[in-house]
Amino acid sequence: MQFSSESVEILIEQFSKLPTIGRKSAQRLAAHVLKMPKEEVSRLATALLEVKERVRECAVCGNITDTEVCIICSSAKRETEIVCVVQDAEDIVALERTGEYRGTYHVLGGVISPLDGIGPDDLNIRTLLERVAAVDSGITELILAVSPTVEGDTTALYLTQLLDPFPIKVTRLARGIPVGLTLNYADEATLSRALAGRSAVS
Amino acid sequence: MQFSSESVEILIEQFSKLPTIGRKSAQRLAAHVLKMPKEEVSRLATALLEVKERVRECAVCGNITDTEVCIICSSAKRETEIVCVVQDAEDIVALERTGEYRGTYHVLGGVISPLDGIGPDDLNIRTLLERVAAVDSGITELILAVSPTVEGDTTALYLTQLLDPFPIKVTRLARGIPVGLTLNYADEATLSRALAGRSAVS
Repeated sequence: MQFSSESVEILIEQFSKLPTIGRKSAQRLAAHVLKMPKEEVSRLATALLEVKERVRECAVCGNITDTEVCIICSSAKRETEIVCVVQDAEDIVALERTGEYRGTYHVLGGVISPLDGIGPDDLNIRTLLERVAAVDSGITELILAVSPTVEGDTTALYLTQLLDPFPIKVTRLARGIPVGLTLNYADEATLSRALAGRSAVS
Repeated sequence: MQFSSESVEILIEQFSKLPTIGRKSAQRLAAHVLKMPKEEVSRLATALLEVKERVRECAVCGNITDTEVCIICSSAKRETEIVCVVQDAEDIVALERTGEYRGTYHVLGGVISPLDGIGPDDLNIRTLLERVAAVDSGITELILAVSPTVEGDTTALYLTQLLDPFPIKVTRLARGIPVGLTLNYADEATLSRALAGRSAVS
């Protein structure tokens, strides 16, 4: 026996399908929904439906957007010469938060991972090549901002080979010791990378 | 700048209004919703709306239910002589999980808490008295299963005084050391209660 209401049970079941939400959290959320004003709940329900209705991939970069072309690609203030290649749209949010990057993006939609059955054809690689190959692209640099994991490295290597024929600079994000981390907490691979990438104190 | 989609931003905002869900978790949930099949999302949205549409308080005990009278109150197998008075419908779920209790319930909908502006009139106390006073009630015992907090104790004391004129036994749940807890982790108040409530080894 659980809650003596079938609709509450159904809601708990639906909540617990979401990531990081277990049965207990789902129960707590459902109990909260019961106490929420009806309009609030309806706003949440509408937001859920609207997202599936409206959100699509940007026709240029694959970023999530409500419009044909996302606000980054359609902004006149962004430098179109530099394209930062990321794994997911969420990575764009993280990079934008730095406030340092003024170029555009390209969302792969994942990384090459044979174990998960994800090959190059499952990613937005064809559209990336089309962007680079376009006569008026003006792209001079591609930053491969994939995660420094085995899959990320494989993807970066694959892309580097594909992009070889084009006269553009291909770079990767620096790997090294995260800001704020004490040296002895860094793992060996990171420390090796940090050593190899050391720079002169200016 | 956040996600370059207004509908995703709205969803994140709505998610982060839920308890225990911060901005970061809300983002993660929204990203998951984007990947979910449309039917799944629509099931969650419908579940949210249905709950607000269907769920009401049981006319007898105040438990949450989709029907006029909840399945516990309408069950012929439950002993109506014993009524367990709880703070919330969630407490019923917890008590039912023990599988030990065969009586019925009464949901107060909170505890007396002057600091939060909750007085006796804000709770389902009148309906409890009506149940007890009914000629054919047959109630012989009321278990006050409120939490052993200041507010819970106040509420229990208040109810005990109110119920004094009726020829029924009023009890509270035993307070003591939680099963599985090492003695030296128990706080003094709990230990004092455990000492006072000690029982003979049978």
